[in-house]
Amino acid sequence: MTRLFNDPVAFVDEATEGFVAAHSHRVRQVPGGVIRSTKSEPNTVAVVIGGGSGHYPAFCGLVGQGLAHGAAMGNLFASPSAQQIYSVARAANNGAGVLLSYGNYAGDVLHFGQARDRLISEGIPCEMVKVIDDVSSASLEEIQKRRGIAGDLTVFKIASAAAEAGYSLEEVVRAAEAANLRTRSFGVAFDGCTLPGADDALFHVPEGKMAVGLGIHGEPGISEQDIPSADELAELLVKRLLEELPEGVKSAKGARASVLLNGLGTVKYEELFVVYRRVNQLLKDAGLEIVEPEVGELVTSLDMAGASLTLFWLDEELEKFWAAPCDTPAYSKGSVVSAEQLDAAELDIPDPDAIPEATSESQEAAEKVLAALEATYKVIEDNEEEFGRIDAVAGDGDHGIGMARGGKAALEKGREVKERGAGAGSLLRMAGDAWADRAGGTSGAIWGAALHSLAMAIGDEQKPDAARIAQGVRDARDNIMHFGKAKVGDKTLIDVLVPFSEVLSERVEAGDDLKTAWQAGAERAEQAAQDTADLVPKIGRARPLAEKSKGTPDAGAVSLSMIIRAVVDVL
Amino acid sequence: MTRLFNDPVAFVDEATEGFVAAHSHRVRQVPGGVIRSTKSEPNTVAVVIGGGSGHYPAFCGLVGQGLAHGAAMGNLFASPSAQQIYSVARAANNGAGVLLSYGNYAGDVLHFGQARDRLISEGIPCEMVKVIDDVSSASLEEIQKRRGIAGDLTVFKIASAAAEAGYSLEEVVRAAEAANLRTRSFGVAFDGCTLPGADDALFHVPEGKMAVGLGIHGEPGISEQDIPSADELAELLVKRLLEELPEGVKSAKGARASVLLNGLGTVKYEELFVVYRRVNQLLKDAGLEIVEPEVGELVTSLDMAGASLTLFWLDEELEKFWAAPCDTPAYSKGSVVSAEQLDAAELDIPDPDAIPEATSESQEAAEKVLAALEATYKVIEDNEEEFGRIDAVAGDGDHGIGMARGGKAALEKGREVKERGAGAGSLLRMAGDAWADRAGGTSGAIWGAALHSLAMAIGDEQKPDAARIAQGVRDARDNIMHFGKAKVGDKTLIDVLVPFSEVLSERVEAGDDLKTAWQAGAERAEQAAQDTADLVPKIGRARPLAEKSKGTPDAGAVSLSMIIRAVVDVL
Repeated sequence: MTRLFNDPVAFVDEATEGFVAAHSHRVRQVPGGVIRSTKSEPNTVAVVIGGGSGHYPAFCGLVGQGLAHGAAMGNLFASPSAQQIYSVARAANNGAGVLLSYGNYAGDVLHFGQARDRLISEGIPCEMVKVIDDVSSASLEEIQKRRGIAGDLTVFKIASAAAEAGYSLEEVVRAAEAANLRTRSFGVAFDGCTLPGADDALFHVPEGKMAVGLGIHGEPGISEQDIPSADELAELLVKRLLEELPEGVKSAKGARASVLLNGLGTVKYEELFVVYRRVNQLLKDAGLEIVEPEVGELVTSLDMAGASLTLFWLDEELEKFWAAPCDTPAYSKGSVVSAEQLDAAELDIPDPDAIPEATSESQEAAEKVLAALEATYKVIEDNEEEFGRIDAVAGDGDHGIGMARGGKAALEKGREVKERGAGAGSLLRMAGDAWADRAGGTSGAIWGAALHSLAMAIGDEQKPDAARIAQGVRDARDNIMHFGKAKVGDKTLIDVLVPFSEVLSERVEAGDDLKTAWQAGAERAEQAAQDTADLVPKIGRARPLAEKSKGTPDAGAVSLSMIIRAVVDVL
Repeated sequence: MTRLFNDPVAFVDEATEGFVAAHSHRVRQVPGGVIRSTKSEPNTVAVVIGGGSGHYPAFCGLVGQGLAHGAAMGNLFASPSAQQIYSVARAANNGAGVLLSYGNYAGDVLHFGQARDRLISEGIPCEMVKVIDDVSSASLEEIQKRRGIAGDLTVFKIASAAAEAGYSLEEVVRAAEAANLRTRSFGVAFDGCTLPGADDALFHVPEGKMAVGLGIHGEPGISEQDIPSADELAELLVKRLLEELPEGVKSAKGARASVLLNGLGTVKYEELFVVYRRVNQLLKDAGLEIVEPEVGELVTSLDMAGASLTLFWLDEELEKFWAAPCDTPAYSKGSVVSAEQLDAAELDIPDPDAIPEATSESQEAAEKVLAALEATYKVIEDNEEEFGRIDAVAGDGDHGIGMARGGKAALEKGREVKERGAGAGSLLRMAGDAWADRAGGTSGAIWGAALHSLAMAIGDEQKPDAARIAQGVRDARDNIMHFGKAKVGDKTLIDVLVPFSEVLSERVEAGDDLKTAWQAGAERAEQAAQDTADLVPKIGRARPLAEKSKGTPDAGAVSLSMIIRAVVDVL
């Protein structure tokens, strides 16, 4: 139960402010997150991590000497926006490129990918390593689909220590990937956490039961069983992890590994130590040499009740970097010589609020874009509860809240920059960034990306015509499909966006005016949204449990189709 | 909810084993707790801390370079026994004396006091500082009665840094006392924690309410109110702490202080940061200069929901010691140069199991002592639930469990040492130590101390006669009253022990045989136990809530009177 907050909407911003106040000698706030407050060696790689908030020490608590250079901080359990990541990376950059590292979740993949493209387009070398340690989230054959959980720490630590050692970006990526492929985690949960202001937990596990493999945001697990004894839990976790030795490790016997026993929030230290006692015995019995283990709260989920065990199989280089000293708000090791504090003047922080010049035609067209944002938010406001209800069938039920947060932020930003003379393209781009910033989650990422693509096609010069808008919708579709990896039939909003884009482009090419073409597209979109009821999700949900969503359409598909329909009236 | 355990009785032992396995480069296990695994500077003071388990990082997590030299670890929420403290202190001693420091709770005061006497009697200089930071537990006029909560950390840290700096025992005590008198904490709670294996929490706060000033073991608070916003909570806590400036601080304006915002278990980091944001603003508004604050879990109570704020008012010396580097399993600061690991052979660990020589008369008498222990345990076994029920009226309801654990351990130890030829005195002494070790709590401490005194009077030479036993009972009474500070009329077992001892001594002096005299004492004891129903507790309970125990006799008084009665049959 999360009890201490003011306005729930301000929770993450206020937590960040308090965090930075408490740790001002180690971190400083920048737009989008935090960076080290200390100077780093010039011309070394910067490691920028990030993800949703609510997982402290992940992610901001792991910024400091010897560990990450910066952390982009999204809303609760929601990816930071591309703009946030980009901004933190720019501020953290030491001149030798940036490694972005994050847990493998759709929204994060999308946003970190966009941020990377933008950094590269500005001449900053950038690579990405997504953490994939959770063995219960996909099979070994599909290892790249696995989620990132407590193994985040080992990958971040190795990448950062390699950067600290002066490795090139390419070498840092190699070391981080080696760590990633040698990190395996397996978790269980007993109950969900409650978001500030929510009446109930995000999810529950039946009383007396344990959900095996449940994700840290409540992603469905692989099975449920009675809560075992501490020893039995240790046996379950160790057995599964020893079944899957990473490439390069022939046998547990004689191998060296670090062990992380992580509490998710309300499984307390004494319980973890009781479990660790048996983990330690079992691993020693298997002939493993345990190196610098950690037992505690490394990646949490607010007050979720659960725990995970991570094995990090070492080689000589990884062991050296794992043991390297670091000093962060939440994780310290060895003896770190304090670096000088950074001078604010040295920071490279782009002004996200600067408005590019625009023609008067584009400024005029901006009025229509604003009207479309108004129509969009109206739809969301009227249907927020319903979106949440549909989403809760097989998801986490936050689609309504996320859309409302995003739509409102976009509208407010749109109004503000309209006053300041923004063109149609910039208005939409900045509104889209605000949407992604505030909405969080995969849908926030997708909406931000879509509006961004559309905005780029519209630009700030000409009055946007039908052909340009149809092109923008195609770009938005491609952008989302590229980053989000969803295909038609996966039960996502792609099932609506693809046919809508098709009909819109066809009709515009056939000579229809924008309103007529859009109207035809909207009808097709509505049908497509209803059709998703027959589908089963392929992404972000464990297969066995995804089945139960059959019969209910996808929340993202429904909200998109309704918004498309509402926009007709303002064209 | 504590879910992960094996046998609940083994919880603390197993947690300790896991803790030591996870932190073997910093701590090593010794009988009674842990000490640093690293060498300390010879001829420096050793700081030995301790208390009940269940408060991690307190107490074992704070052992390491720059912080404590050792921690005596009691059972869950129960003081370690004098034997445990003594044993840890012996092992931690570096040749310049020992400072014992602990939170001010009756059981701890008793046991640490006994341990100190034993250390001094063996030529090891020893002093004590009991932490008294909780402003809600007694008024400023009765500051010495206040409980110790999260302020433990500041006192332990200052004492340890002073010891590390080579201060003499006297100087370490002075610095620790200065820290103690400049540390003020104020806490709130939203719900209680659940002991492993228990069906329900130790206590509950009504849903939606907040208990102000509630102790970390559920000791009654000062008021209840609706759960406020994070900002309002910050205002409540800061206001109270700024009302009471310690001696030597004229005004908050311009003063320097450290700030600890402590989570008790399930109030998570993000919530604490939201609260800290406002705490920071308020203290800055008051003109305070905040020095190296801490926000996190410093002294917990398993999964209790609550938080406390501590102000630690610094002077030049305290600030220097607060900032000094340290490196422990749960608390690290600055840059510590790793010391060499300690050699096991260097440890001074007394063998608690060695049995002194005894005459055959005394060995024969040991049979009667064992029979008395059997009768004692029978009474407890038959009435365990009833003792718990009575205790729950105004206490924590653990009297039955504690007595059962203690009585069983004493009986088993008695049987074992009887086999090994122990005399009557040693049998009773070792049984008493086992009782205190396993029972925990104030009653464990008192029973351990009582049996110890009686054992000393009996000795291992003569057959114990009536006069010697009456003398032993008087010693036990004096010992308990000396350490426990309870007087007749305070509604404790003293209300039974004092009249029992009086009648026993009178009748023995008048020439009655032991059995007759004891029988007379037993009758008086039974009456006295019933009479405690008219009293109101004076110790260990907040006054306003102690009232409700009226009409119910004291659980400790009742169990003692029943045991006295049962022992008649074996005399």
